[in-house]
Amino acid sequence: MQQANLNALFDPKSIAIIGASPDDQKIGGRPLSYLQKYGYEGVIYPINPKYEEMNGLKCFPDIQAVKAEIDLAIIALPKSVVLDTFKKCVDQKVRSVIIFSAGFAEIDEEGKQLQDEISRLAKQNHVSVLGPNCLGMFNVSKGVYGTFSTIIEDEKPLLSNIGFVSQSGAFGSHVFTLARQHHIGFSYFVATGNECDVDVADCIQFLAQDPGTDVIACYIEGTKDGDKLIEALKLARKNGKPVIALKVGRTNVGMKAALSHTGSLVGADEVFDTVFKQYGVYRAETIEEFLDVTYAASKLPFQKGNKVAVFTVSGGVGIMLADQLSANGLTLPETPEPVKQKLREILPIAGVQNPIDTTAQISYMPTLLEDFMDSVLSSGEFDSTVIFLGFAGLKLDSLADRITTLKAMKERYKDIPQIVVTINSKESRKMFSDAGLCVIDDPSRAVTVSKALHFFANRAEPDHEETYLPVKEDVFGSSTLLTEYGSKRILKQYAIPITEEKLARTAEEAIQFATEIGYPIVLKGMSPQILHKTDKGLVVLNLIDREAVRIEFKKLQKIIEETDGAEFEGVLVQEMLRKDSVEMVVGSKKDPIFGQIVMVGMGGIYIELLKDVSMRKAPVSTTEAEKMIQELQASAILQSYRGKPPYDVEELSHLISQFSHFIVAHEEKLLEVDLNPVMVFEKGHGIKVADGLMTLEKQVIHS
Amino acid sequence: MQQANLNALFDPKSIAIIGASPDDQKIGGRPLSYLQKYGYEGVIYPINPKYEEMNGLKCFPDIQAVKAEIDLAIIALPKSVVLDTFKKCVDQKVRSVIIFSAGFAEIDEEGKQLQDEISRLAKQNHVSVLGPNCLGMFNVSKGVYGTFSTIIEDEKPLLSNIGFVSQSGAFGSHVFTLARQHHIGFSYFVATGNECDVDVADCIQFLAQDPGTDVIACYIEGTKDGDKLIEALKLARKNGKPVIALKVGRTNVGMKAALSHTGSLVGADEVFDTVFKQYGVYRAETIEEFLDVTYAASKLPFQKGNKVAVFTVSGGVGIMLADQLSANGLTLPETPEPVKQKLREILPIAGVQNPIDTTAQISYMPTLLEDFMDSVLSSGEFDSTVIFLGFAGLKLDSLADRITTLKAMKERYKDIPQIVVTINSKESRKMFSDAGLCVIDDPSRAVTVSKALHFFANRAEPDHEETYLPVKEDVFGSSTLLTEYGSKRILKQYAIPITEEKLARTAEEAIQFATEIGYPIVLKGMSPQILHKTDKGLVVLNLIDREAVRIEFKKLQKIIEETDGAEFEGVLVQEMLRKDSVEMVVGSKKDPIFGQIVMVGMGGIYIELLKDVSMRKAPVSTTEAEKMIQELQASAILQSYRGKPPYDVEELSHLISQFSHFIVAHEEKLLEVDLNPVMVFEKGHGIKVADGLMTLEKQVIHS
Repeated sequence: MQQANLNALFDPKSIAIIGASPDDQKIGGRPLSYLQKYGYEGVIYPINPKYEEMNGLKCFPDIQAVKAEIDLAIIALPKSVVLDTFKKCVDQKVRSVIIFSAGFAEIDEEGKQLQDEISRLAKQNHVSVLGPNCLGMFNVSKGVYGTFSTIIEDEKPLLSNIGFVSQSGAFGSHVFTLARQHHIGFSYFVATGNECDVDVADCIQFLAQDPGTDVIACYIEGTKDGDKLIEALKLARKNGKPVIALKVGRTNVGMKAALSHTGSLVGADEVFDTVFKQYGVYRAETIEEFLDVTYAASKLPFQKGNKVAVFTVSGGVGIMLADQLSANGLTLPETPEPVKQKLREILPIAGVQNPIDTTAQISYMPTLLEDFMDSVLSSGEFDSTVIFLGFAGLKLDSLADRITTLKAMKERYKDIPQIVVTINSKESRKMFSDAGLCVIDDPSRAVTVSKALHFFANRAEPDHEETYLPVKEDVFGSSTLLTEYGSKRILKQYAIPITEEKLARTAEEAIQFATEIGYPIVLKGMSPQILHKTDKGLVVLNLIDREAVRIEFKKLQKIIEETDGAEFEGVLVQEMLRKDSVEMVVGSKKDPIFGQIVMVGMGGIYIELLKDVSMRKAPVSTTEAEKMIQELQASAILQSYRGKPPYDVEELSHLISQFSHFIVAHEEKLLEVDLNPVMVFEKGHGIKVADGLMTLEKQVIHS
Repeated sequence: MQQANLNALFDPKSIAIIGASPDDQKIGGRPLSYLQKYGYEGVIYPINPKYEEMNGLKCFPDIQAVKAEIDLAIIALPKSVVLDTFKKCVDQKVRSVIIFSAGFAEIDEEGKQLQDEISRLAKQNHVSVLGPNCLGMFNVSKGVYGTFSTIIEDEKPLLSNIGFVSQSGAFGSHVFTLARQHHIGFSYFVATGNECDVDVADCIQFLAQDPGTDVIACYIEGTKDGDKLIEALKLARKNGKPVIALKVGRTNVGMKAALSHTGSLVGADEVFDTVFKQYGVYRAETIEEFLDVTYAASKLPFQKGNKVAVFTVSGGVGIMLADQLSANGLTLPETPEPVKQKLREILPIAGVQNPIDTTAQISYMPTLLEDFMDSVLSSGEFDSTVIFLGFAGLKLDSLADRITTLKAMKERYKDIPQIVVTINSKESRKMFSDAGLCVIDDPSRAVTVSKALHFFANRAEPDHEETYLPVKEDVFGSSTLLTEYGSKRILKQYAIPITEEKLARTAEEAIQFATEIGYPIVLKGMSPQILHKTDKGLVVLNLIDREAVRIEFKKLQKIIEETDGAEFEGVLVQEMLRKDSVEMVVGSKKDPIFGQIVMVGMGGIYIELLKDVSMRKAPVSTTEAEKMIQELQASAILQSYRGKPPYDVEELSHLISQFSHFIVAHEEKLLEVDLNPVMVFEKGHGIKVADGLMTLEKQVIHS
């Protein structure tokens, strides 16, 4: 996507409306009406052969008749003529196009082909296209209204520093309207429709560079280009702009609904979740959370630490806040003793311990709130404040006093986000907004906001991505599936510690290797056609002498030879590992949208049942790998526990990082890798991959 | 609590206000003002020596001057004169009293003593007392206003079928005001204050029998009398009234805040949680959830099954709803094929698969919603509906049509709860309310409501509580701690299966017992002073002959004899259990509020880290015990898994039930019991308690 043409789309100096109408209830009439009534300062070219003049503007019969540069053309015509019209735009060197019309890929195969043709022409001629089947966009500060949505028909949208991009027009409209009701505005509103050209990633990238946008909110159902999305998210992070995403299709049921809605591949949700976490995107679960966090991030500084001071007019709500803050990883440090003393002097009946109960006296003592807040915040012990004012928002006369106090506190403690909670009326929202304050309707929602502001302050920094040299030769040969032996031989080339082992072709060889490695020994029968060795009886543990090795070798060979279609590769002679280790699983899978994903989990049946797995897009640094391990529910088991020494998390992290670079080096070839188990020994004693399996792409087109 | 006196408190025929004032801004002026302006029809006796007449009523110098029966006296006087005044009320045979005044147990020891004296007099004389330190109560249908709260000063409260009791006045006020803003009323509002006499359980019990109350909402910080609370909850369940609780103090941090707020014992939160679940109380986490669920339960039928039909004007919101419903244990069955056909005929571009996308055409086709809903619901395949209408609530002209449709559907499908979602204005809320419909502001909150309505339809039925005869003799002797041997001998008397074992005093005895039981054998050194046998090396597994038994016996005896203060009880000779079992833990603890609690969890270190435990107040039936097992995160491990046969859940449930009756039979004596591990074998092969430990009360006062 060329930035220049995105500028033409989002900030056009001239706009042609093809299918324009003087009737502001018609699809082609609305953008014209909005542009005129909400103060667009560029040139408008209404295009409609039935008119010579429209709303005081010269009207043109077709786009060729416009003898001037056109930044943006809006196509508001029936599907049947869209392609022809678009071609004319291309001929006319129009720099960007919005297609409102529906009936394309969302309907049937014919529609899809039509859309693909538009897409092809767009890319070939470097025209930015938004749509088709889309509600359009608007840019509030420049008065650009390329939309037929009715959500702005009654009132001009409010301007703010929030850019909002939505893959669903109806969803976007709903959020916009809810925001309007809460006196929250936007810099840009974009509905991307079928995304034949401009997609949600392009919009994020644009907004990440837009000086009028500080916060980016997006509604996502899926994406075709994972790398582009990641690049956009990285840019937003680099530019210090928080991104809040509401992504649907989390469960299988939702995923199915999403497939039927979009008709296209949407990608595994858990991988989206991983990517969001990894690139600092706050994922909201509900519309309320989406809007609350977006709005708070647009008003408040990030929250540097997790120490929250709560001021409340209700002791009960204070307890509830204490519960919910601590359940969300935030803390309520004790009020420092000298501060308690001060508070008691101000109001003896106050609850001076954090959560601090101002009691209903707040209504009778005009300076109480300021005195309390100032005493507490000046201690320097707190990173954030939640101020619960009950239903003060409905008592407008006393509210003005409260707002004066809060504004003064906000200015005095600029780095401490101040989350005010009260029941609101339309009037109180406006008062808070005019004062530049952030007000939330419900205490629990304030907790979420505090958590999110802390999340943004701690967004993962870009990895220091040390890269391992990929092995140039094709290490995989022509196989599509490697045995444990084959897999581990390759891992060894990447300096990944594996069990000491050798492949024996004969019983004599096996005995010789066993002697070299040292008893007790493990034997494993190898056949590329047999994946589940244990189920087939192909693993024998704890052999202690030559004779046992000889007998078992024969048995293993026989099992394989008697299995239909199974090829006998040999018998793996392997050291017997000590028991005093924790079994982990490290693996990878290739996601169709985002590529190689690295995973770590605890081994064993319980954890498999509990799905306790941590993922990242590969590669990851050792530091990031350590974070992955810490995220596991059961990670405590690796730490010092019940007097046992801790396990070698350092070497495990190192393995995950190494392995993640390995899978990226063979991005195309590797479908799935499963190192299971990886034995983790006591700290200082390292790790060992005890078993491993790789599934490969059948055919790789080498570029 | 005598029901008669609660009636006098909540529905008095005559009210004396001690400290009455003609100034409606004074504490003693407000109840008088409210009673008069909101239409109380009983007799009011203002009491204040400064007046002969007040607001048109005869005023009395003191309560003795009232020569008539008084159902309720309100004390609105300074703390210093409260006790004397209360005594006069008692002398005057006043049947109930509300004490607004603060300064009692919530302040200091002196205040507590004063309060205890009031409490004692109240019980002795059968006077119901609400307070002290309380905001009071009101009964909307009878116009009884025993409160000085300002929340009703501007408007008369709305009447509904919701009874609300709160242990915090400020919290209650906040919820009341929020409800008022959402056009939600109440039958009763009660703030219980310091609960010197009437507590939250009494209020629930009263509301459970009140014909004007169908739903009971309560805010709880703690209780002193667990049994009374349980009785009240049972009565509400029996009378078919849902109870919704917001209980604070869930986390340690919150618990600490609660302690500092109430100054009294609040009880372990996890036990409250258990009791709520067990007696069918819906526990809300946030104020929004609390109010949404209460309101929905007051308007809608319970939801018999988990099959939800979603109608949505936004495909995106439909996907989000599908995600969230299925994450909450609800399902979105496919639209039946003939119904799909019908929907397609009505609107070809509709998304006919559930979640059903009506598209924006709903605004242009007046009968679309009714046609769609009728087609889908008449299939009989759905238990509930969520209807997402976007911002229809802000478009009042078209909203009237929608409401007509929804009302018709509600009447046609009486048993199917209909949860309407839209952004609302004050006007739209009133329209929905007048039509008897339930409207929620946010789609995710509708999911919670659907889950709650399903919860109420499936509230656990009262256990069929088969009781085991408690052993009359004191099975525990004088010990305060029993060894494994002592503990298991007692369990055996209750028909709980334990390992085959005998206590040997000498090595020769041990050899003889080993022969009887059969090798291999386990030896465990027993001493009441040594709790952690394994740590001390007192457990020896897998002994296979006489000689081994002889040697190990001596070793174990020596370890105990060389341990300071340890008494040698003997060596337990125990069968060696097969390995093909799952290790579980069954235990109990005595909660100071609710008594004996029975617990089950998975054994092993992972589960200990994950705190995967399920609890109930004892005793439980076998059916309930099976539910406990199913609630465990890792319960799948007991089922047929990866081709393995399932484990004996039936016998495990039986054990839990038996054990739960055992601990109740010894309620006073047993502090804590830990059966760990309980080995669960394959289905049909039963279970065995392999180890067990009991901690006993030091002194039990036998009643």
